[in-house]
Amino acid sequence: MQEFELIRSIFQSSIMAKTEGRSDILLGIGDDCAQVMVPEGQSLVFSMDTLVEGRHFPFDADPVDIGYRAVATCVSDLAAMGAKPAFFTLGLTLPQSDPQWLAGFAEGMAELAEPIGLLLVGGDTTKGPLTITLQVHGYVESELTPKRSQAQVGDDVYVTGTLGDAAAAVPIVTGELHVTAERFDYFYEQYWRPSPRLIAGMALKRVVHSMMDISDGIGQDLQHITRASGVGARIEFNALPISEMLRNWQPESAGILALTGGDDYELCFTAPHSARDEIQLILQTLHLPCTRIGEITESGFVVEGYDGDTAGWQHF
Amino acid sequence: MQEFELIRSIFQSSIMAKTEGRSDILLGIGDDCAQVMVPEGQSLVFSMDTLVEGRHFPFDADPVDIGYRAVATCVSDLAAMGAKPAFFTLGLTLPQSDPQWLAGFAEGMAELAEPIGLLLVGGDTTKGPLTITLQVHGYVESELTPKRSQAQVGDDVYVTGTLGDAAAAVPIVTGELHVTAERFDYFYEQYWRPSPRLIAGMALKRVVHSMMDISDGIGQDLQHITRASGVGARIEFNALPISEMLRNWQPESAGILALTGGDDYELCFTAPHSARDEIQLILQTLHLPCTRIGEITESGFVVEGYDGDTAGWQHF
Repeated sequence: MQEFELIRSIFQSSIMAKTEGRSDILLGIGDDCAQVMVPEGQSLVFSMDTLVEGRHFPFDADPVDIGYRAVATCVSDLAAMGAKPAFFTLGLTLPQSDPQWLAGFAEGMAELAEPIGLLLVGGDTTKGPLTITLQVHGYVESELTPKRSQAQVGDDVYVTGTLGDAAAAVPIVTGELHVTAERFDYFYEQYWRPSPRLIAGMALKRVVHSMMDISDGIGQDLQHITRASGVGARIEFNALPISEMLRNWQPESAGILALTGGDDYELCFTAPHSARDEIQLILQTLHLPCTRIGEITESGFVVEGYDGDTAGWQHF
Repeated sequence: MQEFELIRSIFQSSIMAKTEGRSDILLGIGDDCAQVMVPEGQSLVFSMDTLVEGRHFPFDADPVDIGYRAVATCVSDLAAMGAKPAFFTLGLTLPQSDPQWLAGFAEGMAELAEPIGLLLVGGDTTKGPLTITLQVHGYVESELTPKRSQAQVGDDVYVTGTLGDAAAAVPIVTGELHVTAERFDYFYEQYWRPSPRLIAGMALKRVVHSMMDISDGIGQDLQHITRASGVGARIEFNALPISEMLRNWQPESAGILALTGGDDYELCFTAPHSARDEIQLILQTLHLPCTRIGEITESGFVVEGYDGDTAGWQHF
């Protein structure tokens, strides 16, 4: 048990566990339960993600990177709800108590959690194969939550940022592929330090019909929206936003990586034509690129202009 | 991905995921986040527990039992806060998608969750060694939360039910020890089907000073209260409540199992002398045995009357 006391003390003393000045957190780490008073008029939204070593991130990775990315990928779900980050819990299963690893992991988590006001308020630590479960919680006005199920026929379909970089980065971060230092630095960062689009999510929630974050690739994730909304979509393969770095490095496969690659954690959202000007204004103000990639249709899922191995990448 | 769609459908179709009639649950399984509106005037309490196969429960156990016990052990933390169960999330890592195993696991969870109004609202499923992380959430008036840190010198120390059965059961449930059918049935049940003391917790929260659930053994857990409260405790070894079944079976070791054995999930609480009559009345009404085992002192932790291998079981 003593080793797990040590773990608790590492997290409890971290800057991300300091409840001072947070009137919503009545009890943090250390009791049977944490206790929170959700601010009046706000609803609580939350998402749980589990990351398994060797499956969701490479073996023997830098614990600082693992910690940062664990928080980033989970917080991205709050962005998709337009919610303000509030607090999180951590279920950490690890093979042994390694104080240096733990300090790095806590540092990586705090690096993202602290500036966005996401407090660590509880969790559990157990011994076993390295597995990280996070539950992140945020606050949002209940009537302003952009759900997956509210896309409407005729909506524009947008994505923020660029797609495909994180998928292209996988063989680099696993060490299978060696590239120039410049490419290494760029793609390493794209994989390990995704930027959850929190501010964009909060700003967009008033104008969008539906929104989600892209964790499994736009080709797959947009279908979560169309299925939940009972509609279809047509997107333009050549409209998918791709970074200069990726296009220069892999001009042939950049498009397919953007279409099918996961882990970018950009936002995908649908909105009526009437919102075009406002959306442009919001994203210009945030200096965040945003691209219209297609539209919501009555049914089916079509990727126009895809001339890969098959005649086209289609479902249904 | 298809296999994990199957898993989602098993949980989503379970009786414990039905949000009908629950005005507090705005969004359940299926979006980026679940969404909840905490009832006015109530605070949210929550606890996360991780269970690893082979460490927190035996390999190849009945999935119905695993599911029931996972919910029970985690809900026990809500009982310790005097909270009303509300909803939970499930992070499930499992080696392969086995529909029969999953159906049993869901059935076991629902068996406890459904009657106590604990709804499954979200989670994550991943592939890897069998690891179960639950976060259970409950509602409680913020001013009535019995914390670990509020024990006062002179308080009586009580435990509900009996202690030691679950620890005695371990070699039975792992198959290391073969016993009579009557003993097997009793101890198997004690290990796999602990009863979280929810009603007792809710009824007692108005009269106790501090309360917690006993998961690691009273000898260890009571010290969480004394440390958090900056006090000591003296308990009577011979006052520890022990079941007839355990005393008859293991008269020699029953006491030490009651003192140091975990997994009973009874409540331990401290309360002033002035509350004795009320406490007796509450627990008689609930038909729940409750035993005064000692008192809160200025400092130290003493177990009087323990004549085992050492002169006495003492810390400090």
